[in-house]
Amino acid sequence: MPSIQLKTPSANYAIEIASGLIRKLPARLKKLKNGKPFRPFIVTSSEIWGLWGKQVLAAFGKDQPTVLFLPAGEKYKRLRTLESLLEQLAEAGADRDALLIAFGGGVVGDVTGFLATIYMRGITYVQVPTTLLAQVDSSIGGKTGVNLAAGKNLVGSFHHPLAVLADTDLLTTLPASELRAGLQESVKAGIIRDPKLFRYLESNAQAVLRGDAKALTHVVAASVRVKADVVANDEREAGLRMILNYGHTLGHAIEAATGYKQLLHGEAVGWGSIAATRLGLMRGLIGEAEADRIIRLILLYGPLTPIEVKASKLVDLTSNDKKNRSGTLSFILPAKVGRAVIVRDITREELLEAAQWMLEQMRSQTTKPTAKAKKKNRR
Amino acid sequence: MPSIQLKTPSANYAIEIASGLIRKLPARLKKLKNGKPFRPFIVTSSEIWGLWGKQVLAAFGKDQPTVLFLPAGEKYKRLRTLESLLEQLAEAGADRDALLIAFGGGVVGDVTGFLATIYMRGITYVQVPTTLLAQVDSSIGGKTGVNLAAGKNLVGSFHHPLAVLADTDLLTTLPASELRAGLQESVKAGIIRDPKLFRYLESNAQAVLRGDAKALTHVVAASVRVKADVVANDEREAGLRMILNYGHTLGHAIEAATGYKQLLHGEAVGWGSIAATRLGLMRGLIGEAEADRIIRLILLYGPLTPIEVKASKLVDLTSNDKKNRSGTLSFILPAKVGRAVIVRDITREELLEAAQWMLEQMRSQTTKPTAKAKKKNRR
Repeated sequence: MPSIQLKTPSANYAIEIASGLIRKLPARLKKLKNGKPFRPFIVTSSEIWGLWGKQVLAAFGKDQPTVLFLPAGEKYKRLRTLESLLEQLAEAGADRDALLIAFGGGVVGDVTGFLATIYMRGITYVQVPTTLLAQVDSSIGGKTGVNLAAGKNLVGSFHHPLAVLADTDLLTTLPASELRAGLQESVKAGIIRDPKLFRYLESNAQAVLRGDAKALTHVVAASVRVKADVVANDEREAGLRMILNYGHTLGHAIEAATGYKQLLHGEAVGWGSIAATRLGLMRGLIGEAEADRIIRLILLYGPLTPIEVKASKLVDLTSNDKKNRSGTLSFILPAKVGRAVIVRDITREELLEAAQWMLEQMRSQTTKPTAKAKKKNRR
Repeated sequence: MPSIQLKTPSANYAIEIASGLIRKLPARLKKLKNGKPFRPFIVTSSEIWGLWGKQVLAAFGKDQPTVLFLPAGEKYKRLRTLESLLEQLAEAGADRDALLIAFGGGVVGDVTGFLATIYMRGITYVQVPTTLLAQVDSSIGGKTGVNLAAGKNLVGSFHHPLAVLADTDLLTTLPASELRAGLQESVKAGIIRDPKLFRYLESNAQAVLRGDAKALTHVVAASVRVKADVVANDEREAGLRMILNYGHTLGHAIEAATGYKQLLHGEAVGWGSIAATRLGLMRGLIGEAEADRIIRLILLYGPLTPIEVKASKLVDLTSNDKKNRSGTLSFILPAKVGRAVIVRDITREELLEAAQWMLEQMRSQTTKPTAKAKKKNRR
């Protein structure tokens, strides 16, 4: 069973990736609490709980946990959802010995982690990510938080879980579109730091995309290893950790431009990665052959939903991104497969050119699923 | 100028107590940021800003800070106030280089500290407490947070400021009733840990109560020293820090029973301290002469507003206090002047008896200001 230890100045915990982890959940929690008494609270959404709730409750036997729900979707990742959960915890008599279990995708994980940060000035929590995106990315690294009207993830904390338990069985009920989109974060991990993972994703695309358990476990573990390694070296995002934002600056702009409705996060990151690769090529940081190889892999895990938007709008929206300090545009660009660099002086013109090129790629993409078909698959 | 260094596992900063600090505020901020660029945001309430805003802005000269307001009063210490401030920060383009300045009493300090904890996952802040209560107690120790409908301070964090700058000039515009009430926290500091401060408060009551600058500076500095010393030894309230709750368990119950409207916090703490002293006497932890001396000092800094409530109601309300773990009642009791102990097995009957005795003292208090007169003095 792959188990990756994440050690930072403020935390040291295991990220386990395996089939069947939720059956062992209560025993794992006991071990994590070192025999100290605790009260488990599961925070989840009704969609995922409908699929897996019975099995989770069965694992707990007679010591049933309290289950709290939050509505699914990015638009509920707000302070008012948090307040409702906080009041529910208080009403249920949750004390400092409460242990929260985030059972869901990225929104559930981010909200639950933040809930654990601020309830009674900090209680413990465990991540049980149920989507690929959450397993390879959002559950790792201790970033928690909610959105403001003014922007995404503007409120939050660094607060690590006691452990991340990524049960690959949970991915069997994941819609294919979400699996594909989530894999863009694994592609990103390969591009920025792991040429072996990159090659594995090139050579085993079919097995990975059809959800083969062994292939997925390999990809999840390798992706987690990249993220854990980066976070261990720069917990607070003072430098290195910024490379994890590869593809995300324009990705966030694409999401904002489409009201967070038309694309899955991973798809937006896929497009953003394509633009970042183009920027790397324009800057002469990377050769044409390497750049082509990167873009081919991104599209191999597509198709990515195309959008209708002007390049200038996307560029305007990047200035709202919190990674941009004091007006300068910082970008993560590829230097070769497996290595990314931070470039801090990207001009508006360069970005515009890269965004325009990316939009041309969108238009030339052969497979274009209709927005309707995409929507059906999403939850 | 008294300057007390507070060193904890997570922070190391100065608490300065002096006249004229706000005039030097911009220079102090620059020094605290070590020459790094920053953008100052003052968070305050319109009442205190009306009294001191001009002088603060004059000190800043041409580099004017942005000023954000929150309404005064405990009932605005809620997540919705926080959300409004968070959105205002984002709208004003506040980045990770924002530096918040909490300019106000306890509510302003608690909310601003929490705002700094969660905006962009943590920015820096400075405390400029403007009430005696905030100078001797709430601004020290890094506790931040807001209330839930279910209870006070159930949401928050430990997040220390870069510095606490307690300008004693600010106390000159403080209503006498607030000065008196705030002094109960200094009396508490004397009782639990500083016999010298206790004696000073006994011998210099007149000077202290009329707001003599030298006497007040002495009392503030000594009180801060007690709190800083306790916090340095137990930042996260795992043990020792609990002694700071002396008088607070019943104090909170009294505040809850009266809807947080009839008494100032310090007055409720005063009554709670009287009950705790009685409990110490009942348990034989402290002799009658010492207990009398403690109660006399508490009343010397009175009169404390009396309330109409049943002892049983107060006892019921203590079980909602978050310091009570797993149903047992923990209390901080005096062992002698200058030493307090934690007693974890106080029974409901004992507490009832002490509360009843305290209520009798209320009725026999000679000076009873009317509720109306009290209200006028409050802001």
